[in-house]
Amino acid sequence: MFSKETYIQRRAALRNRLSSGIVLFLGNIDNPINFKDNCYPFRQDSTFLYYFGLSVPFIAAIIDLDEDKSIVFGDELSIDDIVWMGQQETLQAKCAKSGVAQTSPSGSLSTFIQKAIDSKRTIHFLPPYQSSSKIRLSELLQVPVSNLKPSVSLIKAVVAQRSIKEPQEITEIEKALQVATEMHLLAMRLGNIGTKEYEIVNAMQHYAGDHNCSFAYPPIVTRHGEILHNHHYHNTFGKGDMVLNDSGVETSLGYASDLTRTFPADTTFTPLQRDMYQIVLDSFESSRNLLQPGVSFKSIHLHATEILVQGLKDIGLMRGNVADAVAAHAHSLFFQCGLGHMMGLDVHDMEDLGEQYVGYTDENPKDTTTFGIKSLRLGKELEAGYVLTIEPGIYIIPELIDIWQAENKLAEFINYDKLKEFRHFGGIRIEDNFLITPEGYRLLGPELIKSVEDIENYKQAYA
Amino acid sequence: MFSKETYIQRRAALRNRLSSGIVLFLGNIDNPINFKDNCYPFRQDSTFLYYFGLSVPFIAAIIDLDEDKSIVFGDELSIDDIVWMGQQETLQAKCAKSGVAQTSPSGSLSTFIQKAIDSKRTIHFLPPYQSSSKIRLSELLQVPVSNLKPSVSLIKAVVAQRSIKEPQEITEIEKALQVATEMHLLAMRLGNIGTKEYEIVNAMQHYAGDHNCSFAYPPIVTRHGEILHNHHYHNTFGKGDMVLNDSGVETSLGYASDLTRTFPADTTFTPLQRDMYQIVLDSFESSRNLLQPGVSFKSIHLHATEILVQGLKDIGLMRGNVADAVAAHAHSLFFQCGLGHMMGLDVHDMEDLGEQYVGYTDENPKDTTTFGIKSLRLGKELEAGYVLTIEPGIYIIPELIDIWQAENKLAEFINYDKLKEFRHFGGIRIEDNFLITPEGYRLLGPELIKSVEDIENYKQAYA
Ligand SMILES: [Mn+2]
Ligand SMILES: [Mn+2]
Repeated sequence: MFSKETYIQRRAALRNRLSSGIVLFLGNIDNPINFKDNCYPFRQDSTFLYYFGLSVPFIAAIIDLDEDKSIVFGDELSIDDIVWMGQQETLQAKCAKSGVAQTSPSGSLSTFIQKAIDSKRTIHFLPPYQSSSKIRLSELLQVPVSNLKPSVSLIKAVVAQRSIKEPQEITEIEKALQVATEMHLLAMRLGNIGTKEYEIVNAMQHYAGDHNCSFAYPPIVTRHGEILHNHHYHNTFGKGDMVLNDSGVETSLGYASDLTRTFPADTTFTPLQRDMYQIVLDSFESSRNLLQPGVSFKSIHLHATEILVQGLKDIGLMRGNVADAVAAHAHSLFFQCGLGHMMGLDVHDMEDLGEQYVGYTDENPKDTTTFGIKSLRLGKELEAGYVLTIEPGIYIIPELIDIWQAENKLAEFINYDKLKEFRHFGGIRIEDNFLITPEGYRLLGPELIKSVEDIENYKQAYA
Repeated sequence: MFSKETYIQRRAALRNRLSSGIVLFLGNIDNPINFKDNCYPFRQDSTFLYYFGLSVPFIAAIIDLDEDKSIVFGDELSIDDIVWMGQQETLQAKCAKSGVAQTSPSGSLSTFIQKAIDSKRTIHFLPPYQSSSKIRLSELLQVPVSNLKPSVSLIKAVVAQRSIKEPQEITEIEKALQVATEMHLLAMRLGNIGTKEYEIVNAMQHYAGDHNCSFAYPPIVTRHGEILHNHHYHNTFGKGDMVLNDSGVETSLGYASDLTRTFPADTTFTPLQRDMYQIVLDSFESSRNLLQPGVSFKSIHLHATEILVQGLKDIGLMRGNVADAVAAHAHSLFFQCGLGHMMGLDVHDMEDLGEQYVGYTDENPKDTTTFGIKSLRLGKELEAGYVLTIEPGIYIIPELIDIWQAENKLAEFINYDKLKEFRHFGGIRIEDNFLITPEGYRLLGPELIKSVEDIENYKQAYA
């Protein structure tokens, strides 16, 4: 946990952003895998961690905006629990570290909420994403699950606060990046011809675990870099394959890292891979250089896209005017997703609160329908204190090419003939994490090698 | 998956045990960790795996008892999904492998159930343990979550069927045991003075993962063997410590293994540890020898307990008549839990269906109140085809001793003075998995060393 003052100040800042009523936070539960007592590793809700720091299952908390007090609802261990699980710090002692003086049994929350309902007080809550929270909210508020109405003013207040990272949060993120960077180097040493995808995943998990971290998300480790969400790891890397490794860890306090590297299973890229890699790297570096407060991330995304299109033009896969191609979304045959996203206590920070609120504004809302741009999680103007990823890529997806080619879609920008040679090329992505500073940006964590030369030298050194 | 015929026959056998109506099975979903698209590893519900073999999230199935047909409800991938996740086998093709000819979109399940409700057909379902299933059942059946009434006849039919393991299920369990056995040997080699608990856990996970398995449950790896459910791994093993390792894996089809060994971090046990270990081993071997059809597991549990009490008497921690001590539950100061449990697709097999139905009978119901015996998950007469664990132990729990001693509880059987010397002794458990055969029993999986001599020799060989 951070200091007691941290949590007290964060809650005070939240109160200042809201008018009146009660804010209700539900913590996460121990989620059953295949029966009640066989559970997944516990992960507290990130907003709960942010305001209370308590990594304890089955608790809830309220902030009373009118009476300026916080209460945590949860049960102390019974003697049966102590016999089974050993003596532990009491919930009350844990809460004291969060600056919460008052705890109350779980069962008393419904009475508390009932009183608030009776006195017609506003009860603010965030959108629930775990089913257990949906049920509990439904029961507490006496509203069907499908009719729960999260508080937009609360969402906006939390997003405003969590978006600007404190120095101690940056330190945690950089801890996560320290471990993730070493983990990626390990993967580069292991990811050779004959290696299985899962061998890299398991070795990374082992490394992260031994360094007091866990995966921040299911890693993507694949010879099919064009598959954006690949969570099966049964392929073997062969000669000519690239390894795409998108993986990051979170610290014990819950702060994430999110890095991607693409490297040859062999000790060198093929000439074609090198050309394509350089296009992605150019796009990465050029867009990174634009990071600064006041610039919209959407404009940086579009810039990154133009660099990709120019590169694809240079090698003959695209043609025509670059700006026109981007305006027509022709690039989305090769770059289907967004340039990056916020990162913090969640790898896609605050995604549970809604991308519209996290990444966009009422004045410039998210485009939720156009293929490509609808996957851009962050579009709004940057502010100092934001932490985000930059992750351009090129993905050659046979199924998508077939669909586009069947209707000769945007053929003025796409050379479908040439594309045949690339059908099984795969995909490339490069991703780092940055802090927006008053002056511009700062790379978070150690530098992880990413030039063609550095990667080939590293592979050769460990061959 | 097993053969198509396997699933067809299992569903036919279930139909034969039930009269009429519809059986509704909900599969598990991808469970969110901290936001909707960041999920825990998917694990299908075990009963769903048993009857359909489909390890696919967000599907459901019905067996129509009257019309003799099965339908799986789920959605095929959209082109967006294929772009994001790659081309995959269709749900229809997967269902064909399960002998299910008819699939229907997820959305049509509510119409199907509504029709069944309108025609007053019985809708059988099992007790939901994941919150997502509770919500879905509540919405489908239009009943509040707290009023859902699972079908006892269905529970009994499923338990009767799943309790008797098929030869191919035994083969899977033995695959899990093959991997778990090697994993335990790895832990013995690693578990030395100076090792951290988590280093063993992470190395075991790495080994299991590289052998196409995953943990069947959060492992217990601890220098505090007396803590029965210890899932924090931050201690370092010191001189004089024992390592208690209770861990098992499940295969890709979902079949579990569940082994426990206790060994010295040093290369030898202390004399006191050796004596206590031998008591547990004697209890283990003596109770194992009683395994055979027709014998109640409760009687074997009581026999194992008597052997423990005799041993504790021999070293001076208990006193008085052994049978009287057991009848008075005096042993439960040292052995607070049950001798074993069923194992199969779940490590505690079918625990979601209710211990009363899995481990007991209407005639001999479970004792749910007496400390000690209330934790015995299996009490009923054994049948050929059962797979179960035997896992006696001795646990010296300071908090429990203090409570008992404060009231001088059962002092005629317990030597509280002598017990002072043992206050920080810790705990010992030994656990293997067995199949009940017509003749008696068979140890499943390879023999994993467990005598004092074998363990010390192994530790010395790798020191
Ligand atoms: Mn990312
Ligand atoms: Mn067990």
